[in-house]
This record gives sequence, structure tokens and C-alpha cells, in this order.
Amino acid sequence: MEEKASPCDPMLRVGIPAVIPAELFAGFPKEVALIPLSEKLDCDVDIDVWIPDPYPTRAQRVVPHLQGVKLVLSLMAGTEWIPGAMGPHVTICNARGAHNVSTAEWTLTAILSSLKYIPLYLEIQRSGVWKRRFEATAQYANVTGDKEAHYPPIMQEELTGKQVLLVGYGSIGKEIERMLAPFRVHLTRVARTPRAEPKVHAVADLDTLLAHAEIVILILPSTAESRHLINANRIACMKQGTLLVNAARGPIVDTDALVEALNAGRIRAALDVTDPEPLPDGHPLWKCPNLLITPHIGGSTPMFAPRAVKTAEAELRRYIAGEPLQNVVQAAT
Amino acid sequence: MEEKASPCDPMLRVGIPAVIPAELFAGFPKEVALIPLSEKLDCDVDIDVWIPDPYPTRAQRVVPHLQGVKLVLSLMAGTEWIPGAMGPHVTICNARGAHNVSTAEWTLTAILSSLKYIPLYLEIQRSGVWKRRFEATAQYANVTGDKEAHYPPIMQEELTGKQVLLVGYGSIGKEIERMLAPFRVHLTRVARTPRAEPKVHAVADLDTLLAHAEIVILILPSTAESRHLINANRIACMKQGTLLVNAARGPIVDTDALVEALNAGRIRAALDVTDPEPLPDGHPLWKCPNLLITPHIGGSTPMFAPRAVKTAEAELRRYIAGEPLQNVVQAAT
Repeated sequence: MEEKASPCDPMLRVGIPAVIPAELFAGFPKEVALIPLSEKLDCDVDIDVWIPDPYPTRAQRVVPHLQGVKLVLSLMAGTEWIPGAMGPHVTICNARGAHNVSTAEWTLTAILSSLKYIPLYLEIQRSGVWKRRFEATAQYANVTGDKEAHYPPIMQEELTGKQVLLVGYGSIGKEIERMLAPFRVHLTRVARTPRAEPKVHAVADLDTLLAHAEIVILILPSTAESRHLINANRIACMKQGTLLVNAARGPIVDTDALVEALNAGRIRAALDVTDPEPLPDGHPLWKCPNLLITPHIGGSTPMFAPRAVKTAEAELRRYIAGEPLQNVVQAAT
Repeated sequence: MEEKASPCDPMLRVGIPAVIPAELFAGFPKEVALIPLSEKLDCDVDIDVWIPDPYPTRAQRVVPHLQGVKLVLSLMAGTEWIPGAMGPHVTICNARGAHNVSTAEWTLTAILSSLKYIPLYLEIQRSGVWKRRFEATAQYANVTGDKEAHYPPIMQEELTGKQVLLVGYGSIGKEIERMLAPFRVHLTRVARTPRAEPKVHAVADLDTLLAHAEIVILILPSTAESRHLINANRIACMKQGTLLVNAARGPIVDTDALVEALNAGRIRAALDVTDPEPLPDGHPLWKCPNLLITPHIGGSTPMFAPRAVKTAEAELRRYIAGEPLQNVVQAAT
């Protein structure tokens, strides 16, 4: 690849997080000056491009000291805090694609763990009493409302053949669809931008679609429009026992409405994100039944940093070459 | 399908478990007499074909009262107790294929739950302390032996790209392979019968293959040859942190050797079956670290009985029509 030292000369200055191992940046173009920035930075620095620390709270500590930033290359898929912190005159790109695998795997894990009652079985494992397995049969009847007699007794459910509603159809949503394929689910897609092929419904159809879903997966950006997309009215549209999976951002779900629905035994949920987040000690959500909470770990695998840095590197090379950027979430005004 | 009342005339008598809802047998051929058998049966009955209760202990109570049985159509994949109970003059068929989906789904769930540290996250959820999530980072370093610095901290692992050793390549093994496909794992197969296409290695290669595996899946029949296939020597061949998944039968693994390896932090495991089974209260396996136990639930989904009865029905129709049976595990002598 040809590497010109434009648009900045003599050297493009790129701020990178000091905490990310330096070897991950070894493949960056030679004419770029890499400036490792600690979250304890206490002087102003002039940089052209900023790759923020993946943790927003740490990244935000650096912001007041930055000057001259024209381009932000986030290592995250969700960049909701950056426009407010950096203003409108900066181009912001996310790490589109870098979190597909890890977040889609988390989603499959959350769905399967819930349908197989893994939380209950771990409780039984800790108690060391094999015959408590029949509690799963009672849980199945309670959560699904299916009070028919079954023999042998039901001890887990199946994902295969389920009605799945995928809310959000960006690159992670497509990856989730790919991982669901062997389970022959009946998939319905909803997104901000409806499309014909494959069929993606408009958000306006959500109430109707929710009534048919057995599993609802949220994987859409956190915006003013998506705030409380899942509220008490929308939960009321859902069937008894529907599994709500939030792999996106906490504020998309109205937490109070979710707590009420879970405590009433109406639906079940698996959340990697919450609102507020971190979820405070003693928050009522921690104790809700039929719920799996993981503390925002969806992207945090050993492959996270290598993939996200590679994605930022590719975007940086396009910027240097004057080519169109591929992952712009805010164009500079 | 043509339904002749041969080989038995005037009516073929088929014993079925009284506890399975009668409507599941509604599609059976009209010229067959269905005899529901309770486990409390206290008189002798003459039947030609026996469909035993899926639970061996309940089925075995009926055996002393059965006369004239020529064919046993098991609803299970594993039929290891039947030859001993019924003798060599009876043809025994299993419900090949009926448990593919449920057992393969359990296997995927067990693998993903283990790699994502779901047991730890559920403990954290119960404690209600979000910041305990960094315990996952310590668990990752301990279990894998990877003591390198990572940023962001590792909080889950990925299945994608892992080295997987599939031990057993019957119909459930093939279904597991199908569900693993989206994760782009590097799959190596081992079975009693080596084959060229797709490549299936001989059991004699196991020691060598175990050294390369990150995940070992057991899904082979329980036989005299497979007893303690995974023993202390074989565990010693495995890499640090290998995940051993037993979706087959307990005796295939030497429990004492497994307990020792788990307590030493050498490997991790996910078991749906144990030896002894049921696992007694207070057994040391219950308390081992890096272990997920489910109490033999792999097949027990709402679809179990409908699928298994359909499989038995198809085999019965072949028997009546004088066609070759498809799922024979013991031919009558």
C-alpha cells in the first residue's frame, strides 16, 4: 500500500491509549507518529487523530487536554459519548465489524443458557442434590405457561425452530443471524432503515411483531429515538415467557418496566448492559427471577484489542491515502 | 405406505409406556394393538414389540413381566442396559436421530457457558457487585495459563477459531459439527470406525490428537472399549485449560482422574452425565472448580417425546412391511 504523509505534513500525529500493548500498533504506517496517552495526562497535546481508550470514563479524562483532533477512531461499536465530548467539527469513526464475533457469541450464549436453565442448574450443582433437577420442570411450566403433562419431564427448552425477532441489523446483527442459522429459527428483522431484501421491517411495526416473538434480541445503536424502545407498553405486547436479550445498550430498555415484568413472571431476560451502568449495589434488577446479567463483557475477549486496532489501522490508512472512510458515525461539519 | 399385518397375525401387539401422552401414538398403524404398560405392572403380558419407558430404572421394572418380545424400539440413543435385560434373542433398535438437536444444543450451551464464565457471572449477579467482573480476568489467566497483560482486561473467551476434538461421529456428533460450523472451529474427528471422507481418525490416534485440542467433546456409545477412555494418562496429554465436554455417558470418563485434574486446575469440564449417576449427595465432583454439571438433561426438551416416538413409529412401519430396520444396535441371534 502506498503511504503518503498527507493530509498532514511532516508527520501525522496519532494519540493512542498507553494501556494497550504497543505491539498491537506495530503494523501502523511508518510516517505516523504514535503518541501513547495515559489517562493521567496532565499537559495539553496536539494530535491529528485520536484512538481513545475503550473505556469511556478513562477516555473522557484525556479529552480536555486534546488539541487539533480532526479524526476520532473509536475501538468500540457504540460511540454515543464521543460527539458530545468532541463537538461537531471532528469526524468520528467506530470499529465496525471488530466486535461482531464476540458480541454475537455472547448473544448465542445468553439465549442458550436461558433456554437450558443454566442458572438453575448451577444452583443445583452448588447444592449437590441431583434430584432437584425436577425443579426445571416446574420452571418450564411457570415461565412458559405450558401446563400440559409431558413425559419425560421437560428439563430444558430448544432454540431450534423458535420465533426470533432481531431488533437492529447492522454488522453485529448480521453476525448474530449467521450464528443462529444452524438452529433453523424463524427470524424477523427490524431496523431504523427498512429494506426489501432481506426483508427488514420498520420500527413502526414493532408492536405487532413483538406479539409473535419467543426471543427478542436488541442490537441497535443507543440514540434519542431508541431510548426506552422497550417500555411497559411494548413488554405488554410480548407473549408469556418471551426472552428479551439486550446486547446493545442499557437505555434502550426501560429498567423499571423490565423489573416489574420480571418480578411478575411475565417475561425473562438476559442483559449484558443495564441502565444505570454499572448497575449499583442493591439495585432491584440484581434480584429479579428468570434473568441473566453479565456486567458488560460482550466485547472483552482476547481477540478484542487485536481486531479493533486492526480496524482502526485500516481506517487510518484510508485517511492517509485520501480514500473515503468506511465507518463514519459523525462527519465533521 | 402399505401396512400388512405381518409378521404377526391377527394383530401385532406393541407395549408402550403408559406415562407418555396417548396422542403421540395416534399416528401408529391401525392394525397394531397398543398396550400401555405402567411401571407398576403386576401381571405377565404377551407383546411382540416393546417401546420401553425412556427412564431405564422404570423400564427395568417391567422386564420380568414381558413375554414374547421380538423387537425392542428404544426411545433413547443410548441403549446400554437393554441387551443384558432382554437377552440375545431380541432385536434392539435405538431412536437414532431423535436426540440430535437437543443433545447438540446442550453441547453448544455447555461449551459457550464455560468459555464465557457464566458460572462466575451468575455468582457475581447473586452478590450484586458489578465490579467483581474483574475476577473473570483472573480466572482467564489461571485457567488458560496466559499471564500476558491484556487491555482491555479479558472477561470472556471465544469459541470462534478454537481447536475442537470430536470423539464419536454418529448422528449426534454430526449434528454437533453442524452447529459448530458458524464458529469456524478447527474440527478433528475420532471414532471407532476411521474414515477418509470426511477424515475420521482412529481411537489409537487419541493421545496425539488430545495434545492439540482446546475443546474435547465426547459423544460416543458407552461400551466395554470406551470405559475410562478419558483417564489420568489421557488427561495428562491435554493442554493446560482444555475444556472436556461429556455429552455421552458417565463411565467414558474416569471420575477419580477428572476430580484430581479439576482440583489441580489442569483442565475444565462440562458434564451432562456422571459416573456414578445420579451423582450422590456429597460426591467430590460437585465441588470441583471450572466445572459445569447438568443432571442428565441433554435430551429432555419438549420435542423429545414427539421426535423419539416418531422415530420408533417409522421403524415399526418398516418392521411390519418387512423392510430392513435402520437403527439396529443388536440383531436377534
